[in-house]
Order: sequence, then structure tokens, then C-alpha cells
Amino acid sequence: MTTSRPGGPDPRPGERGDLFDPDCPTRRLLDRVGTKWTSMVVKVLAREAPGELRFADLRRRVPGVSQKMLSVTLRSLVRDGLVARRVEPTVPPAVHYRLTELGLSLEEPLSALRVWAETHMSAIDRNNRLADESAVD
Amino acid sequence: MTTSRPGGPDPRPGERGDLFDPDCPTRRLLDRVGTKWTSMVVKVLAREAPGELRFADLRRRVPGVSQKMLSVTLRSLVRDGLVARRVEPTVPPAVHYRLTELGLSLEEPLSALRVWAETHMSAIDRNNRLADESAVD
Repeated sequence: MTTSRPGGPDPRPGERGDLFDPDCPTRRLLDRVGTKWTSMVVKVLAREAPGELRFADLRRRVPGVSQKMLSVTLRSLVRDGLVARRVEPTVPPAVHYRLTELGLSLEEPLSALRVWAETHMSAIDRNNRLADESAVD
Repeated sequence: MTTSRPGGPDPRPGERGDLFDPDCPTRRLLDRVGTKWTSMVVKVLAREAPGELRFADLRRRVPGVSQKMLSVTLRSLVRDGLVARRVEPTVPPAVHYRLTELGLSLEEPLSALRVWAETHMSAIDRNNRLADESAVD
């Protein structure tokens, strides 16, 4: 999978993205970072920062995440340079994860969205039930 | 599709959500509002607020969105009570969309995440290419 623009040159260093440009990688980036799993992993690692957590510790602190989904989420965060992965050459090897500086900068906007969702959850849940009750089709 | 807790009672009015509770509707809510399409639709409608836009006008201002994806996104926003839909009984009927007060409150956190993604897009795109080049498996 490439993240550079399908129809154009790679973004220049420092170039600003544009979500409204269909060819801009910002679109895929937003869909990666806007998920519940990214939000939870970043929050848990931000609490530990600048420290790190092992995979099993991370998994215990993100209730409900499967081993596979946590692996996929971490691999994507590492590829984006938001999380750093450190393998300790023990037997078996211990793998540690921590937020990079860039990853730490993501916590503030994710936190704002998380707080909004938690604050308005019950009103929106009620809207959902009202909409489903009044649905005629 | 129900949004109430699979294993528990419906949230009480005013109850705060908890993203870290696997049964809390906040999880699904976050995945709905964190997408690029929701982010773009909310930004476009926020610019018009308190005014409204017709479907075709909205579609023109969200480059690259398909008719189907815009319909799905709007239906979800209406069901959540974030967008209001008004049908004008002309021939053919004209359908107008506007943000509700709740929907307008979503623009600030979405904007923060959008700005973060646009600001760091080129650094992350570079990280992606470096990671892909150094991948050995």
C-alpha cells in the first residue's frame, strides 16, 4: 500500500495537507487516526509517556481489543511514526511500545473528540432510538 | 442496528459515556464521527450554519464523495441528531440539510483533528515511505 498521491508527486517536506483534495494522503490518515482503537492506544501510551508498555500490558488496558486488532493498530501507528517499537532480546523477546513526539502531539486532538463523544453519548443514543422508532421504511 | 448496550440497560439521560467500557455506545459513536466523510460534511455545513444546503450542493463541496457514500454519511448524521433534514414539497422534492446545535458542537473537536492531520501529513507520508523501504518481510 502506498500513501503517496495516486495521480501526483509525493508531498514535499513541510507541505500542508488538504482534506478536501481527493488525492491528498490526509484523507487516509484521518481515517486511520480517527478510530476508537487508535484513540484508546494513544491515550494509554500518553499516560505512560515518556515511558513504554509491553504488548500484553497495553492489551489489558484497552478492554475488548483482540490480539489481532491491537497488532494491526500498533503496526499502523509504528508505520506512521506515531509509536516506536523496541524489541528487547530476551527469551522470548519482549516488545515495548511508546509514543514518539509526533504521537504525543496527537493526544490533544484525540482527547477533544473523545470528550465530545463521551459527553454527548447518551443524547445521541436517545436520538438513535427515537429515529429507529419513527422509521417507516 | 441498535446502539444501546448489548449486555446492559440503555444509558440514562445525561449519563457520561466511557470509551474504555466495551459495552458503551461511545465506541461506535467515535468510529462514526471520526471518519473523513463526517469531518468534511460537518465542516461544509458548519460554514453555512445556521443555513442549510441541498444534497447536490453538499456533494459538490465534498470532492470525491460518491452519491451513495454521501447518502450513508448523511443518514447516519441525521439518525444521531447531528444533522436535520428538511424536505421541501416541490416537484421533484428538494431535500435540505443543516447542522443541529449538537452537530455544530462537533465541529470544534473535528477541526482540531483535521488541522493536526493536515499539519503532519507530509511528515507521516515520509515516515510511511521510510517504513515501507526498510520493511524486510
